[in-house]
Amino acid sequence: MIKFPRPIRNLIDQFSKLPGIGPKTAERLVFNLLKWKHTDKADFANALNELNDSITQCSTCQNISEKDPCFICSDKNRDKTKLCVVAESHDLAAIENTGDYNGHYHVLGGVLDPLHGITPDVLNTNELVAKLQKNIITEILLAFNPDMEGEATMIYLKNLLEPFKKSKVTRLARGMPVGSDLEYTDEVTLSSAIQNRKEL
Amino acid sequence: MIKFPRPIRNLIDQFSKLPGIGPKTAERLVFNLLKWKHTDKADFANALNELNDSITQCSTCQNISEKDPCFICSDKNRDKTKLCVVAESHDLAAIENTGDYNGHYHVLGGVLDPLHGITPDVLNTNELVAKLQKNIITEILLAFNPDMEGEATMIYLKNLLEPFKKSKVTRLARGMPVGSDLEYTDEVTLSSAIQNRKEL
Repeated sequence: MIKFPRPIRNLIDQFSKLPGIGPKTAERLVFNLLKWKHTDKADFANALNELNDSITQCSTCQNISEKDPCFICSDKNRDKTKLCVVAESHDLAAIENTGDYNGHYHVLGGVLDPLHGITPDVLNTNELVAKLQKNIITEILLAFNPDMEGEATMIYLKNLLEPFKKSKVTRLARGMPVGSDLEYTDEVTLSSAIQNRKEL
Repeated sequence: MIKFPRPIRNLIDQFSKLPGIGPKTAERLVFNLLKWKHTDKADFANALNELNDSITQCSTCQNISEKDPCFICSDKNRDKTKLCVVAESHDLAAIENTGDYNGHYHVLGGVLDPLHGITPDVLNTNELVAKLQKNIITEILLAFNPDMEGEATMIYLKNLLEPFKKSKVTRLARGMPVGSDLEYTDEVTLSSAIQNRKEL
């Protein structure tokens, strides 16, 4: 196997560490980068360094942010009685994009996955309980992926939040996604859609 | 659409410039990077900067290299009478990996693609002609992809090198790749395989 010059191998290794990028793809990316202008490559490196220097975590909601508290936690127009619990920052972004939620957030930092060492104490559960102890929140929306880990996390959180009788615990509705096909919808989803049918 | 903090948007834009990486994939990569350790991110940025600082082009074969001339051009054991012309550095690497070629290389810098502005004057054709004028080379192996642009480039080069009667011009054989299936081989490839059949 021919050895690429060390700086190229180095960068291939770095790209290979990213999810979904194998050594062959990494090689293709690096060879593409070789054609970039010097300044463009430097811009890329600077953007990476900036991630280290300018991105912090909001100490209130644990979302990634440039400021602490983040722009959501410091927004006085938001409904303080609603709290949406999500696994990761990008889930928060997805919910924000709908424009249909005006409450606050709590980023848990992952979902329960004991096989990979993600147990409740690794997640931001203590901070969540502390928020509820302030007795302001009336609704907690658990917005997790409807997969095995997500469902397990929601069950765990529901039990954890049981003592706070004042707060209603809700979850995202399951049903048929827009544009989908009855014929190809899996049975569990279709069951949910039937059980949660709505009057027209 | 929620705006991610500027440093994150910045890096998403940078990743999106790479081939095969759309904005959604770039987003996933950046959110993965956010979980990396500070030092690991800095290493990635350094590897990118190193590409700028330490990688040069061999002035003889136009291959990417840490030194000029590169380790192939400066290797005295290589056959100076053979020259393999390839489109890009990674094609050179593929041929080197076989261990079946012991001559020198010439990296053309691409293939003819007039619609995208890649005309003969953009490619390293003058340097190629200059090498042949030294009257040392007896065989030129045109090792291009057997696709439309590759074939067009080989036809162009064959005509360009016509005056150098001393040099035989060859191309990579077309035929069935190892492990392939007669049933699923396309007709052009199978035709080539029949025409170039070999006695056992």
